[in-house]
Amino acid sequence: MTTPDILQALRRRRPLVHCVSNQVSANDCANLLLALGASPIMARAPEEAEAITAASAATVLNTGTPEAETFRLCRLWGQAAAALGQPVVLDPVGVGASPWRLEAVEGLLAAFTPALLRVNLGEARALLHLESGERGVDGPGGTWEERAAVLRRLARERDCAVLLSGPEDLVTGRGGGGPVRRIAGGSPRMAQVTGTGCMLSALCGAVLAVEADCGAAAWAASVLWKACARRAEAESRGPGSFRAALMDAAAALTAEDCAAAEVCAL
Amino acid sequence: MTTPDILQALRRRRPLVHCVSNQVSANDCANLLLALGASPIMARAPEEAEAITAASAATVLNTGTPEAETFRLCRLWGQAAAALGQPVVLDPVGVGASPWRLEAVEGLLAAFTPALLRVNLGEARALLHLESGERGVDGPGGTWEERAAVLRRLARERDCAVLLSGPEDLVTGRGGGGPVRRIAGGSPRMAQVTGTGCMLSALCGAVLAVEADCGAAAWAASVLWKACARRAEAESRGPGSFRAALMDAAAALTAEDCAAAEVCAL
Amino acid sequence: MTTPDILQALRRRRPLVHCVSNQVSANDCANLLLALGASPIMARAPEEAEAITAASAATVLNTGTPEAETFRLCRLWGQAAAALGQPVVLDPVGVGASPWRLEAVEGLLAAFTPALLRVNLGEARALLHLESGERGVDGPGGTWEERAAVLRRLARERDCAVLLSGPEDLVTGRGGGGPVRRIAGGSPRMAQVTGTGCMLSALCGAVLAVEADCGAAAWAASVLWKACARRAEAESRGPGSFRAALMDAAAALTAEDCAAAEVCAL
Repeated sequence: MTTPDILQALRRRRPLVHCVSNQVSANDCANLLLALGASPIMARAPEEAEAITAASAATVLNTGTPEAETFRLCRLWGQAAAALGQPVVLDPVGVGASPWRLEAVEGLLAAFTPALLRVNLGEARALLHLESGERGVDGPGGTWEERAAVLRRLARERDCAVLLSGPEDLVTGRGGGGPVRRIAGGSPRMAQVTGTGCMLSALCGAVLAVEADCGAAAWAASVLWKACARRAEAESRGPGSFRAALMDAAAALTAEDCAAAEVCAL
Repeated sequence: MTTPDILQALRRRRPLVHCVSNQVSANDCANLLLALGASPIMARAPEEAEAITAASAATVLNTGTPEAETFRLCRLWGQAAAALGQPVVLDPVGVGASPWRLEAVEGLLAAFTPALLRVNLGEARALLHLESGERGVDGPGGTWEERAAVLRRLARERDCAVLLSGPEDLVTGRGGGGPVRRIAGGSPRMAQVTGTGCMLSALCGAVLAVEADCGAAAWAASVLWKACARRAEAESRGPGSFRAALMDAAAALTAEDCAAAEVCAL
Repeated sequence: MTTPDILQALRRRRPLVHCVSNQVSANDCANLLLALGASPIMARAPEEAEAITAASAATVLNTGTPEAETFRLCRLWGQAAAALGQPVVLDPVGVGASPWRLEAVEGLLAAFTPALLRVNLGEARALLHLESGERGVDGPGGTWEERAAVLRRLARERDCAVLLSGPEDLVTGRGGGGPVRRIAGGSPRMAQVTGTGCMLSALCGAVLAVEADCGAAAWAASVLWKACARRAEAESRGPGSFRAALMDAAAALTAEDCAAAEVCAL
């Protein structure tokens, strides 16, 4: 599907997207899904994993601000989705921040295989046990070659699609065998707002609800998010007004916005 | 009291309103209460239920993003309020999302009787064990007759006032014996922002702190919220700026805004 | 360092600031740190306290919306920071709201000594076991003399620097022996937004990451926050747009803004 078709499908079908979210970005993720036309449900309790997964079209697991319980819950929700063949997006927020976090995320990846890993470069490097240089959850960039190699290797090792986000996003499909696609554009303000990675992961879940090909869905989510950023930058004066403008943009996004963003997607 | 009188009372007395809130909308609920002139306190720990309930004028229990512990806490806070004869607003967010959630909310309703249930149609239908058709927490509307029947039946079964919110809000007083009051107006953007139902429940708590009649308080809260929505729509370009504008509106609300909103309340 | 120097140091060095935050203001605290140029990490799990503290330049412990677990976690993180000689800011949100909360905060203060206590008057009075009159977390002001006496006594008893925030902020260095410094200015809208105290505490953590003198850092944080408020007020129409404008202001703050705010700091 083209990105305008995906947008239209979201607005028409209003897919239910379930998110295990974190203390920082739960509100933004729910608001982004609503603004796009999807229907969010933010649940956690294992007691309702089966019922809510059955009603949902996609599951987004975000392990930010984790406690031990977070990983136990994500494992259960991930397995519930896997049992139904439902696509799972895993966002291992700041996985390089501690050995404990890395081990816990690896435990998740051993328990189920996500359709898509949405990571930044620091998180990808941590998952590959490379020296990360990561500081917090908002790490620096890297060369295109390094990023592409990291992306491919992670997709191969984890047998899933990967969306590596940053000033320029990179995408590869399941297993990393095909071409690496690049999505530039967007806005430097994206890095000044917390949770824009989490929001992109939620957006990936929404797109996977209407587009079955993981790599194509990741690419479309990236394009849509860059389109939101571009629109929002024009309507804002700094990170606070930009954050609100991202939601305005998501609700107002047109086929023309999508086309303009695709031009930056090489 | 008229809605302008209620607004004035909130701003003058600054009642302390205690909320057990959820991961998604806690910030918005606290900000709305402050913007209206009330004083929010968002607490959870059972160890302080007695002290904080004694200092508060109303209690708002919101069971969104629940875990088993959430229901245990809400039961304790609800009973603490009941022991002091303090009004409780119960917002059983997405109660139809799973059998577990429904059973847990029914456990709460067996443990104490709220002054007011604030629900949308899907939640009301779930509590009445009707086929709900609910998807997530932002369900669709229904005919006026269906909504009025559901409202009355829920008020009768639970012996409380009910505020059924949607594009048009419906209100009935304790037990549902009196007339059903309708409040139209507001803004379609309300459905594009997460937590607007939670915020309305918090607003109900604030109004109950200054107006003892549950049905009258629910009606006034609905009118005030529609007035905020109307004002905010005029000042916004989409759901992100609308959300911020709701707070601006709550702080700036005038007697004229109230009067205009009452015109839509049949 | 002067406040423009501090601002420049934050933007250049991007210090990692770790926050144990609460349900209400975690998002705002992370966004403020990013807007200022710092790098936030919001973690909780004891399993990663050692690794994250070692990577961080300052630790901010906020005990809002507490559960028993919150205090257990804050104790561990506080001790981890103390073991490394890292500055800790403690924000005992609404400590006067219940005897349980007061006892738990006193337990923290017995377990480690923060570099800085950031409190409002009600919280300061509660910590001194004075009749507080506090209602919720947004208590009223007091006379300058009363505030200065409370500030000094708290700094002496707890052997730390204290920043007492309100319409006029007061600051004293470790132990309260030196002069009390006053910072006026800012905006009355600050009291209409939840979490502005939490955000100030996070800001204190950022400043302590680049300025070792606790009293000087607290003073600079207060000046910077008043400067943000002043700028934001000019760009907003009410508390909702003011909240977004605070982030815009933090990202755009100039040496001139700092100088203007310092004029109000007697």
